[in-house]
Amino acid sequence: MIKRLAIIGVGLIGGSLSLALKKAGVVGEVVGYSRTESVREEALELGVIDRTACSVKEAVKDADMVFLAVPMAAMESVLIELKDHIAENAIITDGGSAKGQLVDIAKRVLTDKFSQFVPGHPIAGTEKSGPSAAFATLYRKHRVVLTPVAETNKDALEKVRTMWQATGAEVFEMDVKHHDVVLAATSHLPHVLAFNLVGMLAERDDCDDVLRYAAGGFKDFSRIASSDSVMWRDICLSNSEAILGLIQQYQQGLSELERAIKDQDGETLKTVFERAKQARDTRFKD
Amino acid sequence: MIKRLAIIGVGLIGGSLSLALKKAGVVGEVVGYSRTESVREEALELGVIDRTACSVKEAVKDADMVFLAVPMAAMESVLIELKDHIAENAIITDGGSAKGQLVDIAKRVLTDKFSQFVPGHPIAGTEKSGPSAAFATLYRKHRVVLTPVAETNKDALEKVRTMWQATGAEVFEMDVKHHDVVLAATSHLPHVLAFNLVGMLAERDDCDDVLRYAAGGFKDFSRIASSDSVMWRDICLSNSEAILGLIQQYQQGLSELERAIKDQDGETLKTVFERAKQARDTRFKD
Repeated sequence: MIKRLAIIGVGLIGGSLSLALKKAGVVGEVVGYSRTESVREEALELGVIDRTACSVKEAVKDADMVFLAVPMAAMESVLIELKDHIAENAIITDGGSAKGQLVDIAKRVLTDKFSQFVPGHPIAGTEKSGPSAAFATLYRKHRVVLTPVAETNKDALEKVRTMWQATGAEVFEMDVKHHDVVLAATSHLPHVLAFNLVGMLAERDDCDDVLRYAAGGFKDFSRIASSDSVMWRDICLSNSEAILGLIQQYQQGLSELERAIKDQDGETLKTVFERAKQARDTRFKD
Repeated sequence: MIKRLAIIGVGLIGGSLSLALKKAGVVGEVVGYSRTESVREEALELGVIDRTACSVKEAVKDADMVFLAVPMAAMESVLIELKDHIAENAIITDGGSAKGQLVDIAKRVLTDKFSQFVPGHPIAGTEKSGPSAAFATLYRKHRVVLTPVAETNKDALEKVRTMWQATGAEVFEMDVKHHDVVLAATSHLPHVLAFNLVGMLAERDDCDDVLRYAAGGFKDFSRIASSDSVMWRDICLSNSEAILGLIQQYQQGLSELERAIKDQDGETLKTVFERAKQARDTRFKD
């Protein structure tokens, strides 16, 4: 049971955690803070949180659990703001999509309180954002990855695990670096690819005409290009090493397909397409 | 009203046209042919067609409308086979995803009967294939593009338009070259991109582990990588010029994003992502 949960960033991720824990009846009071006043007011009006705070400092006061759901670039300043104001033994956890850089920042900023920080990443979301996008079942049957390090307090880790389990999520532990590569491959790179395609089409003079003839395949493929640009800018900058490695590998593959098309080398095309289809059909479980 | 419709290739595209026209009550008899005997038998058993034929020659006999729904690479041999066996004034149309190369082939093969050929492309489909994937409403509210050329018989064009309208589709006319660029941008390139990503992940030793943590965004993005590899090989080879031009442009964009990530240039990332999001949200109508 969490007596008081402070949520910094009451959008889709933070708001949905609040709604899920309230629904499960495992949280006393949820205090929410977002930098933009209208956003926190909206979260309050929608019943996503119980009370708003005017600052990070005020939000974390007397909270036993603090959840950070701000864009990656804002994590450091939030950690700096809260460091001297959290309660003794309060646990801090987060929902950031890249963990390596954040763990380094948290270590540097939190110093002696770093052991109370449990790095986490709920692998769930939609292309929508803001408090109105939040819903109680977002995490149900989704995976939440925790990436504790040597210093992480075991009690804090267990409490964060219990919190996520209450939302209906499956909780896994993973090494920080492995997490960042896995997420770069299945989420960060696909977002970059989709943004790049739609951005390129948007620059065409005949963009509207082109998009008019786009079918269902394009709709699904490009849905993630509708995601929040600031959030994704920050993820790219935070997880740059893993993403860059995969972009390079991706470009090599694309150049090979380009060559095959140029040379009318149907054998290579069929082999690559078949390998992909096989993996998508048999190894990817929804 | 079509008295006898011959469908060459009774899979998702050909089978769904048959089912739609039967449902609309605008076709007398549907004769189906597929190279593989078990496929045409399956189509017959499922009620997708009324009768099977053992050859292209037999299928087109006395048909007033012939629909070609075979992979692009098979179009030429089918046209050669049917040329001397179609009825006087029979109309030939197709569902191929690339039109330029096919129009050239049809002109060369059909000679004096080329005016009876109406190049077409129903922009609809799923990642599934075969007669069992066919359904009567596949084309409803979808776009069908016809790309007539100077020689195309106006009566034939109108009859093909009427046929597609009976399936509930919206019918448009487009220049052959423009069609091929538009489809390369919204369908062919996205398929290449998705095949390339999933193919690359499939080669990783930790592929199963990676895919286990893939979320909904990946699921949607990669759905088209589950499409038929032979069909997509053929489309890439048939529409190579337009696809190659776009791959090059795509790679330039990706290299620019790669550079921005490397240089921690958040401004460029945000600009590109925002442009894509804007286009996806406002200019793409489902």
